[in-house]
Amino acid sequence: MTVTARYADPEATLGVANEVIALQLAHRSVRSFTPRPVTEDELAALVAAAQSASTSSNLQAWSVVAVRDPQRRARLAALARNQRFINEAPLFLVWIVDLSRARRLADRAGTTLDATDYLESTIVGFVDVAFAAQNAVVAAESLGLGTVFVGAIRNHPEDVAAELGLPPHAVAAFGLAVGTPDPAEHAGIKPRLPRAAVLHHERYDAAASDLHIPVYDRRLGEYNARYGLPGAWSDRVLERLAGPRSLSGRDRLRAALERLGLPSR
Amino acid sequence: MTVTARYADPEATLGVANEVIALQLAHRSVRSFTPRPVTEDELAALVAAAQSASTSSNLQAWSVVAVRDPQRRARLAALARNQRFINEAPLFLVWIVDLSRARRLADRAGTTLDATDYLESTIVGFVDVAFAAQNAVVAAESLGLGTVFVGAIRNHPEDVAAELGLPPHAVAAFGLAVGTPDPAEHAGIKPRLPRAAVLHHERYDAAASDLHIPVYDRRLGEYNARYGLPGAWSDRVLERLAGPRSLSGRDRLRAALERLGLPSR
Repeated sequence: MTVTARYADPEATLGVANEVIALQLAHRSVRSFTPRPVTEDELAALVAAAQSASTSSNLQAWSVVAVRDPQRRARLAALARNQRFINEAPLFLVWIVDLSRARRLADRAGTTLDATDYLESTIVGFVDVAFAAQNAVVAAESLGLGTVFVGAIRNHPEDVAAELGLPPHAVAAFGLAVGTPDPAEHAGIKPRLPRAAVLHHERYDAAASDLHIPVYDRRLGEYNARYGLPGAWSDRVLERLAGPRSLSGRDRLRAALERLGLPSR
Repeated sequence: MTVTARYADPEATLGVANEVIALQLAHRSVRSFTPRPVTEDELAALVAAAQSASTSSNLQAWSVVAVRDPQRRARLAALARNQRFINEAPLFLVWIVDLSRARRLADRAGTTLDATDYLESTIVGFVDVAFAAQNAVVAAESLGLGTVFVGAIRNHPEDVAAELGLPPHAVAAFGLAVGTPDPAEHAGIKPRLPRAAVLHHERYDAAASDLHIPVYDRRLGEYNARYGLPGAWSDRVLERLAGPRSLSGRDRLRAALERLGLPSR
């Protein structure tokens, strides 16, 4: 059962399950694709699933740019740490926090729309576009497609905005490479923290939660060793969040948002 | 077919579909529940689905607090615009942006962890917890449960943190009421913007996108009229984002995050 792989725990079980949950548990990031194009029908289904997710006050404060052109994908890859699979995947979706649509509505109505200047509105955009994109991922996997998210699209937000012709008050939140998984690709189901490390009852209990970290460090270490990767989870977290220089330029995100018309005050 | 309801367009079709996508298209927010408790097995399945979603660099920068106690739900409801369904739903999940786990790792290792002070890390937390929660919603619906998100949990972030005993460097992102839908409850599938309003090819095209807004205003107006609700979509967006006073106190979010140890600089 995939739940044992998900927790790297041969004892893990679920008392209820079905095909949808089994599909979700089997999620893995795919970074190698065949050349088969993603069809327009498949893309339409992914977007319909995305639009079906909840959205704060029905604002629908997001958009998505479907990039198929190999040259444009290469330029975006260069802006996002040169990750090879952005060139390889036939479809690269750039998910946009989009408060520009509302601003254009206000312009046409001859009124002002000041709430888009606040961090709350930026957060609503990021949350809503994440709900949408996660639905697209599940839909893609239900169709036999594979995906991988690309947070590095935030390394150079102004350059990405220029490449995609984004209007003011919009920013790329993350990318998503989509395609048919290469049959030779062998990435597994990445083990996560034990459930009791993330699930609290009634009130947050840090001590009870953190008890589960040593066993997870061991389990993830064993999983990573299979792929020749070093280190326990704790060490990777400490490296990744050490300081501004560990953020690959994204310590500038706030300044970039301000320049893109999302001052997030 | 649910896609016609999703777009309030009798001509809408999908060239590919399956049971998972049909489940996603049928999503609706449920605000009225029977008293049947959500079982521990169901909760475990929701959390396993949530943990199976992608997470930036495997940081897993989120937690979830499961609130069943009626008194605590009532206090949380009072902090979140007194929405009746928070009292009524047997289970209220509060999804937490949680950079505190990493900070505790650093404390125990005797090292510093400064990247959590940056807006990028706050955004990673909100995006990751949204990926997770959306998976939980899909899992819940696959089990016949209903859900509704509660953004109003951000109206009073410090009070919510105190109620749940959150440590520093953690904040409630949104709530999710979960339960068995009341059979007498009749909320429909809310129509969304036409696909061409949110999906762009290669580059963002504001003019082409906005062409679709008038037809959506009409369709959503007709849908809302069935429930006795006023107004076109455009008017609601302009009201909701008019200015800081339309944000229900959330214009203070940045200051609240700073006090909670997430300065988001």
